[in-house]
Amino acid sequence: MSSLSGFVADRQRLFGQKEMRRLIDPSSVAVVGASDTPGSFGRHTLENIRVGYQGRLYAVNPKYRSVAGVPCYASLEDLPEVPDCVIVAVPNDAVLPLVEQAAMCGVGGVIVFSSGFAEVGDIEKVRIQHRMATIAAETGMRIIGPNCVGIVNSNSMAALTFMPKFNEMCWARGDIGLISQSGALGYCVLQGMERWIGFSHYLSPGNSCDVDVCDMINYLVDDESTKVIACMFEGVRDGARLLRAARRALEADKPLLIYKMATSAISRRTALSHTGTMAGSEQAYAAAFERTGVVVVDDWEAMLETAVFFSKAGRPKASGVGVIASSGGAAVMAADKAENLNVPLPAPAPGTADILKAVIPDFGAVDNPCDLTAESLKSLDLYGECIRAFANDPSYAVVVVPMMSAHRPATVERARFISQLAETVNKPICIVWINEWLNGPGSEIYDSSPRLSMFRSMRRCISAVRAWLTHYQRRDTLLRQPSRSPGRPPAGRIGPAHAARSRTLSESESKRLLVAFGVPVTRERLADGVDAAVLAATEIGFPVALKLDSADIPHKTEAGVIRLGLRDEAEVQSAAEALQKIGAAFPHRPVINGILVQEMAKAGTEFMVGMRRDPQFGSLVLCGFGGVDVELVRDVAVQLAPVDREQARDLILSLKRAPILTGYRNRPALDLEALIDVVCRVSDLAIDMQGIVEIDINPFILHEHGGVAVDALIVSTDREKI
Amino acid sequence: MSSLSGFVADRQRLFGQKEMRRLIDPSSVAVVGASDTPGSFGRHTLENIRVGYQGRLYAVNPKYRSVAGVPCYASLEDLPEVPDCVIVAVPNDAVLPLVEQAAMCGVGGVIVFSSGFAEVGDIEKVRIQHRMATIAAETGMRIIGPNCVGIVNSNSMAALTFMPKFNEMCWARGDIGLISQSGALGYCVLQGMERWIGFSHYLSPGNSCDVDVCDMINYLVDDESTKVIACMFEGVRDGARLLRAARRALEADKPLLIYKMATSAISRRTALSHTGTMAGSEQAYAAAFERTGVVVVDDWEAMLETAVFFSKAGRPKASGVGVIASSGGAAVMAADKAENLNVPLPAPAPGTADILKAVIPDFGAVDNPCDLTAESLKSLDLYGECIRAFANDPSYAVVVVPMMSAHRPATVERARFISQLAETVNKPICIVWINEWLNGPGSEIYDSSPRLSMFRSMRRCISAVRAWLTHYQRRDTLLRQPSRSPGRPPAGRIGPAHAARSRTLSESESKRLLVAFGVPVTRERLADGVDAAVLAATEIGFPVALKLDSADIPHKTEAGVIRLGLRDEAEVQSAAEALQKIGAAFPHRPVINGILVQEMAKAGTEFMVGMRRDPQFGSLVLCGFGGVDVELVRDVAVQLAPVDREQARDLILSLKRAPILTGYRNRPALDLEALIDVVCRVSDLAIDMQGIVEIDINPFILHEHGGVAVDALIVSTDREKI
Repeated sequence: MSSLSGFVADRQRLFGQKEMRRLIDPSSVAVVGASDTPGSFGRHTLENIRVGYQGRLYAVNPKYRSVAGVPCYASLEDLPEVPDCVIVAVPNDAVLPLVEQAAMCGVGGVIVFSSGFAEVGDIEKVRIQHRMATIAAETGMRIIGPNCVGIVNSNSMAALTFMPKFNEMCWARGDIGLISQSGALGYCVLQGMERWIGFSHYLSPGNSCDVDVCDMINYLVDDESTKVIACMFEGVRDGARLLRAARRALEADKPLLIYKMATSAISRRTALSHTGTMAGSEQAYAAAFERTGVVVVDDWEAMLETAVFFSKAGRPKASGVGVIASSGGAAVMAADKAENLNVPLPAPAPGTADILKAVIPDFGAVDNPCDLTAESLKSLDLYGECIRAFANDPSYAVVVVPMMSAHRPATVERARFISQLAETVNKPICIVWINEWLNGPGSEIYDSSPRLSMFRSMRRCISAVRAWLTHYQRRDTLLRQPSRSPGRPPAGRIGPAHAARSRTLSESESKRLLVAFGVPVTRERLADGVDAAVLAATEIGFPVALKLDSADIPHKTEAGVIRLGLRDEAEVQSAAEALQKIGAAFPHRPVINGILVQEMAKAGTEFMVGMRRDPQFGSLVLCGFGGVDVELVRDVAVQLAPVDREQARDLILSLKRAPILTGYRNRPALDLEALIDVVCRVSDLAIDMQGIVEIDINPFILHEHGGVAVDALIVSTDREKI
Repeated sequence: MSSLSGFVADRQRLFGQKEMRRLIDPSSVAVVGASDTPGSFGRHTLENIRVGYQGRLYAVNPKYRSVAGVPCYASLEDLPEVPDCVIVAVPNDAVLPLVEQAAMCGVGGVIVFSSGFAEVGDIEKVRIQHRMATIAAETGMRIIGPNCVGIVNSNSMAALTFMPKFNEMCWARGDIGLISQSGALGYCVLQGMERWIGFSHYLSPGNSCDVDVCDMINYLVDDESTKVIACMFEGVRDGARLLRAARRALEADKPLLIYKMATSAISRRTALSHTGTMAGSEQAYAAAFERTGVVVVDDWEAMLETAVFFSKAGRPKASGVGVIASSGGAAVMAADKAENLNVPLPAPAPGTADILKAVIPDFGAVDNPCDLTAESLKSLDLYGECIRAFANDPSYAVVVVPMMSAHRPATVERARFISQLAETVNKPICIVWINEWLNGPGSEIYDSSPRLSMFRSMRRCISAVRAWLTHYQRRDTLLRQPSRSPGRPPAGRIGPAHAARSRTLSESESKRLLVAFGVPVTRERLADGVDAAVLAATEIGFPVALKLDSADIPHKTEAGVIRLGLRDEAEVQSAAEALQKIGAAFPHRPVINGILVQEMAKAGTEFMVGMRRDPQFGSLVLCGFGGVDVELVRDVAVQLAPVDREQARDLILSLKRAPILTGYRNRPALDLEALIDVVCRVSDLAIDMQGIVEIDINPFILHEHGGVAVDALIVSTDREKI
């Protein structure tokens, strides 16, 4: 994220209302670079602010006395007061002096539109951005930007943005707080206002030299007008701050919806390990979102709809979903998506069925989804009674109503009727508008209804409903768990480039460390020669395995330095001799600690347990089924460390093949508790030894009673003492 | 599909132009049940037809001399001519006499709107529908319906439908032929005409007592005005007919797009087999679609967009996709979806980069996706040059342009400009409209452009592009393969209830059959007692496995009747005695053939190879990785039988874990050819012995050289002689 590279490092604290109120909710605003030139940033900005802002507004430009009817001053110092917020709309080479001047004046905060800083990657520009960050850190004057489209505060109607023609848009106040790293994508969502979808704020952090997405989330958590936070970003610099902000949103019961972009960034593969591709940073984000109850939105198009739904729906009062359609096709479509997305559609209660049968006498079986047929639309009252009956059914948390008729005057009349109906029932109602490509008359009524949620896709509707049910099912569990701060990697030591300074431990070294943390490993001895290997084998008991022990040969199978199932002294002797020969022949002259002689573990089910140090989020604990196919099947689960026993259990049981653990098809159950132990021990190790960047136990062979680590690989930074 | 149960069984032939032209492209139409009553089916129908139909139109109703300006006659016999098409819009109890009368008059075809036939499940109503089907079969008069919304033929402007207010809709002729089992969902798609998206036909088969979806596809394949066939249905009665119609579409190069509904129908689980859940009918549909090059559309919302794209895009001229955006966020969004959906975004050719750099001098790195930044929108000419350069790049088959600015007058101007530009380049251009929730000014221009394809979702755009590239990549291969007719199950013998009349073979019986077809199995003997078991074991060589051989104990592991790894005579003796005891103790008194003594197969990789007889599509051949987790991982591939070696290879290599076969991570490659053999042998068996309904070889253990079937289970109908 080059645009974040001018960020002041290691700021742990989140900014909140105290630090940012003057910036985001200012009593006075000055626009530096105000201009009469049509199409200029300064001109657009003044036009946008003037629409409704009730605070004091100043223009700053030595060339004018007044711009677009706003009094204009030569410089910040000439203003009649120190403004709360200064907007910088000047060429990028003029930005830094202005920021310095604003800080000296005691301005509350600065918004910098200008681009051409860290995002262009030029080292000099990065330095200027860093200088701004330092000014902010030292003076307490907050900065949003540079390279941002600004912010909109709907409460004070402060449209502190240059977005062209914003002043011509409808203003709709509401309880959705919107944050978007991409100014253009955020602006597109904000255009929901044209359909009377209300927002409390639109905040765009740009390059985030000072205030970033995490601060903005934190601000909105404490903002009374915000109920739901809709957030779109490509990445954050510091995972711990995101975790804290998200946790605060969870505690405040303000659903935090995130559309995470840039999932296709080149994965931060750590090349050394067998399963290195498993724990890219995207997995870390996913684990962080999961841990803090973030509602993940997979498609940009779903963001507005999902946010509207959360803001209107409140908390679910049941766990099921009712679907009531006027077309059999739409009913089938809803059932398909619900099954596909695992959303329960319980049958209606007998009372509900009775009402429907009374309302529509020839009606057949009352089912869910319920197909009222097109006939039902002939009487709005009867149609409304059916919807009301579903809404009153105690099994349903929400009622989904696909809307598809195209009879235009009727469409509008029906939309009004259902909007009114929705205000008289105490359940959320979702309209799935699958009509007229795509906004026909009537859809604007659903959009602007204070109670209805409108979707333009069945998939998105059912996905949002699932996210909502899941969020509230998980919320209490998450709140019971202590808020965590991820183990921060030692400053400057971990990062995408850590491998260059890292040290791989040999198998025997790795296992010694694991044993110290309580992980059971194979009985084994490190032998310094052929005779010692034979002796060790007789002591351990046949059959045994032999491996060359060397940190310089991490991929032992591929290097051909493993011999398995050796049944007697003669076999051990010849295998040991062969390994010595192979070891001596490697052109890269690996340092060889000796020959590792170990018991052959009895057959069982192979798992892998591991840890990765993520540059953003600290340690990730991984668990999956092991063996050669671990990467092909991708049945691996990830959580942020530390994990307690319950979390480790959840982690393991979330695997696709988890039923194998608990006794599948008459097979004996495996020792789940032993596997939970190992996951917790690896988590402990990750927390206690921050210099360890990677752990791979693969395979860990699990039995009906106990289990054993058969192979292991640990990578540490060069400074960790082991 | 109860609504299909009044279909005349076993009609193999597909109707085409010859049989259906009078019905679908009539020179004269009579509406029986024509009425002046506002809101009646008859009234709506007359109004719809009158809008543009140039043929001769008659009303039939003894009560009137004229209805809505159309001459009205007392009965069909009184008409001045025998009409090509008769529309029946009367109560359902009056339908059958009318159909009989029409057939006697020599009418070409009948469309029956009335509902209340097979779809209500009443046996008497099913019988009436069946009677109509018989009339059609015997007289050659074709019937569409009952329970349908009718058809629309855009060429002759024959709107033979009662859809309310269809007459107020815009007429847009085009080359998309639309077929929808759900009348309402089809009508919603047809509303694309309001955006000047053109259709050749809309055909709705309803209960399909005579003409069904397959006939309609077949008709449109031969229709000159149709280029793309968009089809939505819940199911067909006869898979062979669907396969033939789809194959004809493939050969005619008319992409057949299918949105398959009712995927959540109760799966046709055959309870006996280990992997019975794997091959429900949905898998059969998927295999059928794959085999015939059907373009599968997963979301209803995607149907119109995808059809429009195929109709405008033609054949791809390259394999890559170019994305050119005016917002970094949109570029990232496109890259995320492309990676997620496996769509290649190759870098632009040097020439393309040169053009872009010449057009926009300060432009940085020219990449794909290319972010032109919002600046680019300031000059349409420059913006257009950049899009043109991408369209001319030889690496790109299509150019995707996310459109997001909301500056209204500019939006319209830009839409006109890009529409014109699109007509001057020889590549398809997709607009992804992510703006103004969701139809702002300008979007209607893109929709109505003859060259641009418009999407309202990035996911759907990238999915459609992928489907298009894949379709044409696979088409030639598919065309080279002979058209197949699936092995039809013996009439009346196979169906959801076949299990009740089926016969399970024991392991030794199953293997004898497999050996006859050339599948290698473990060396084994069936012993009739303890002594015979010991003798067999010594002949086979230790270690051996013992199993009770009984068709009545299909789940041997769960029943505890397997003993593995017996190393000497004593172990065999005591194991055989134990098995005898267990066998005698089963309360359900299984018939036991003896004790099966078999070699212990050497370790290798476990696969499962199987066959299922699908009621719609005949035999499905399955292959997957075996072992206990086969159902949990769901890494199983399916194809329709017969498969040749190439198809078997494709089947196997489509598995997620296929890399294990070809030598993964320095492991030796497995004997792929041996596995291909087994798949082909199973396919042969399925084709030669139509009474076999299920085969499960699990595990088939594959080695570096050869492989062996270790366990097998075959289920046949009771009439198959084995």
